[in-house]
Amino acid sequence: MPEPDPRLAGLLGLEEADESIRAAAVAELDRKTKPRGSLGRLEDIAAQVAAIRGSLRPDALRAAIVVAAADHGIAAEGVSAYPQEVTRQMVANFAAGGAAVCVLARAAGAELVVVDAGIAEPFDHHDVRSIRVGPGTANAVEGPAMTRDQAVASILAGAALASELADAGITAVGVGEMGIGNTTSAAALAAALLGGDPIELSGPGTGLDAEGVVRKAAVVGRMLERNRPDPADPLGVLAAVGGFEIGVLVGVALGAATRRSVVVLDGFITGAAALVGRRLAPALGGFLVASHRSAEPGHRLVLEALGLVPLLELDLRLGEGSGAALALPIVAAARDVLVDMATFSDAGVTDTGR
Amino acid sequence: MPEPDPRLAGLLGLEEADESIRAAAVAELDRKTKPRGSLGRLEDIAAQVAAIRGSLRPDALRAAIVVAAADHGIAAEGVSAYPQEVTRQMVANFAAGGAAVCVLARAAGAELVVVDAGIAEPFDHHDVRSIRVGPGTANAVEGPAMTRDQAVASILAGAALASELADAGITAVGVGEMGIGNTTSAAALAAALLGGDPIELSGPGTGLDAEGVVRKAAVVGRMLERNRPDPADPLGVLAAVGGFEIGVLVGVALGAATRRSVVVLDGFITGAAALVGRRLAPALGGFLVASHRSAEPGHRLVLEALGLVPLLELDLRLGEGSGAALALPIVAAARDVLVDMATFSDAGVTDTGR
Repeated sequence: MPEPDPRLAGLLGLEEADESIRAAAVAELDRKTKPRGSLGRLEDIAAQVAAIRGSLRPDALRAAIVVAAADHGIAAEGVSAYPQEVTRQMVANFAAGGAAVCVLARAAGAELVVVDAGIAEPFDHHDVRSIRVGPGTANAVEGPAMTRDQAVASILAGAALASELADAGITAVGVGEMGIGNTTSAAALAAALLGGDPIELSGPGTGLDAEGVVRKAAVVGRMLERNRPDPADPLGVLAAVGGFEIGVLVGVALGAATRRSVVVLDGFITGAAALVGRRLAPALGGFLVASHRSAEPGHRLVLEALGLVPLLELDLRLGEGSGAALALPIVAAARDVLVDMATFSDAGVTDTGR
Repeated sequence: MPEPDPRLAGLLGLEEADESIRAAAVAELDRKTKPRGSLGRLEDIAAQVAAIRGSLRPDALRAAIVVAAADHGIAAEGVSAYPQEVTRQMVANFAAGGAAVCVLARAAGAELVVVDAGIAEPFDHHDVRSIRVGPGTANAVEGPAMTRDQAVASILAGAALASELADAGITAVGVGEMGIGNTTSAAALAAALLGGDPIELSGPGTGLDAEGVVRKAAVVGRMLERNRPDPADPLGVLAAVGGFEIGVLVGVALGAATRRSVVVLDGFITGAAALVGRRLAPALGGFLVASHRSAEPGHRLVLEALGLVPLLELDLRLGEGSGAALALPIVAAARDVLVDMATFSDAGVTDTGR
């Protein structure tokens, strides 16, 4: 296994969320006017937010959603129901405010940050952040999707963006993506890191039929066969079969966690990015919240590997950060419960200790 | 079976949500810039909101949460982990803004309406709506919990409140409750209407141990044995084993539906109220959204009987409307998707019809 890249040292040294504050938050939640634990997983999230923010009384969360877009050489293998130009068309739709994630980010009161991480042709628009690593990845059935340097560059670009958001007061970051072919890349990342069978990790994506899914799984198999990525080398796995938007999201997650922000995942692709991130810096796990379980079969396995249980069961399979946007208000409300609810003694309510 | 009470005629004539608008909304959602159906159950909710509001472009939803509180004679049988005075203490906590539902309603941007539907001693406070049907119900192991007239009065009071909220511009109503002993009442209602075994419908409520649950199931059995409610007479079932807050919520649900508002349920007790309401007026089903599946075992059976699948899986078991408050923003966001998203042709995105 290669040495960790020294440029990533700041991110790979990520410290764990504060377990002592988590425990204190659990005790504080038990003093609130409700039967012990009766707010279920909302209480777990509240304690996690406290542990991440390093405070028993964290400020109200301020949310942003980062949607990173890039193109994939692997799209040439016919792994998507949509042609590659749709990546660029959807970036235009994000910039114009008409896509699902735009509507859902507004509904959640979250800032939306659209990132061109490397679509085939640059998209020049004042509302699109250009941190292009290249004009789409190479076709990973023919060789690595990107160089190791590009993998590092994508992570560093994402981390710099997360740091900038933290400087602007953002404390909860939802992550989303767009990239025709990227469920194939995510399936290959998951297969490389988890050792699963490509067919278990390949799904319909945005609308393949059963035959298309079998073809896609075969492509995933060829990507792995050609590149033989070493699961002990997550950066190498990302370079071999990843995507530029996925690398950027690895960086956003690691960068946000470094700044003690909550990271809210979306579906399968952002889950694969989180898996890469956690292999690079195991402490990342404590900063992650899973928003939903997508209809994509690999997502279940990725969530299990991350040890996360999603908040929503909505059968979403869109991506873009749509599920993260729907979950962010729940995460914000969990913090409110910890900080704003009365205790039994405040309110003069009989506490039976149940 | 007795004749329906003529005072309820206006509510029992509830008309179905508009199926033709629902179908048109599904078609409109298929024109939006996303793979067909990729927003999963959010699309179902969007179409349901259109059908309820009677418009393909409904206004942004404005939400209120009605929390109805009352006491239960059955509490004398030791069916709760908490003493009866906690009902009143929690109403004070609602009025003071310190309870979970207060915090979560604020987070959801929903108005909170606290109702004294009949706690043991009146609670006089400018922020508590008094529509008291009586000073708590009678102990239903000794005879009916309330008279038929009281059951009618509770429903009419709830419906009048819902109508007033609609007049004030509210278009989505979350329902919640507080009442020591009311999971026992809900279990008895569900057992009477669904014919289930009391032990399948009885759970820990706010914190009973296993022995307590067995005792509670026995109490449910005695309530049914003493009153022998006729499942074909939902008003009689409510009178026999219900509660004043449950009757008020039956009325809130029917009244809100009559005014074409969305009704967002909370947990087991509000589910039991919805079951009574749907037996009275079958069209109510089309106006209901289930927010979450509580840890209370009877809730699953009630949701199945209502044909509802919840949006959240958070292991909540608090009540108060806490789950409804968490789900209301998702329902509001579903409407936004229908109205605010761009179509493929608006946005110039290639539509492959998948």
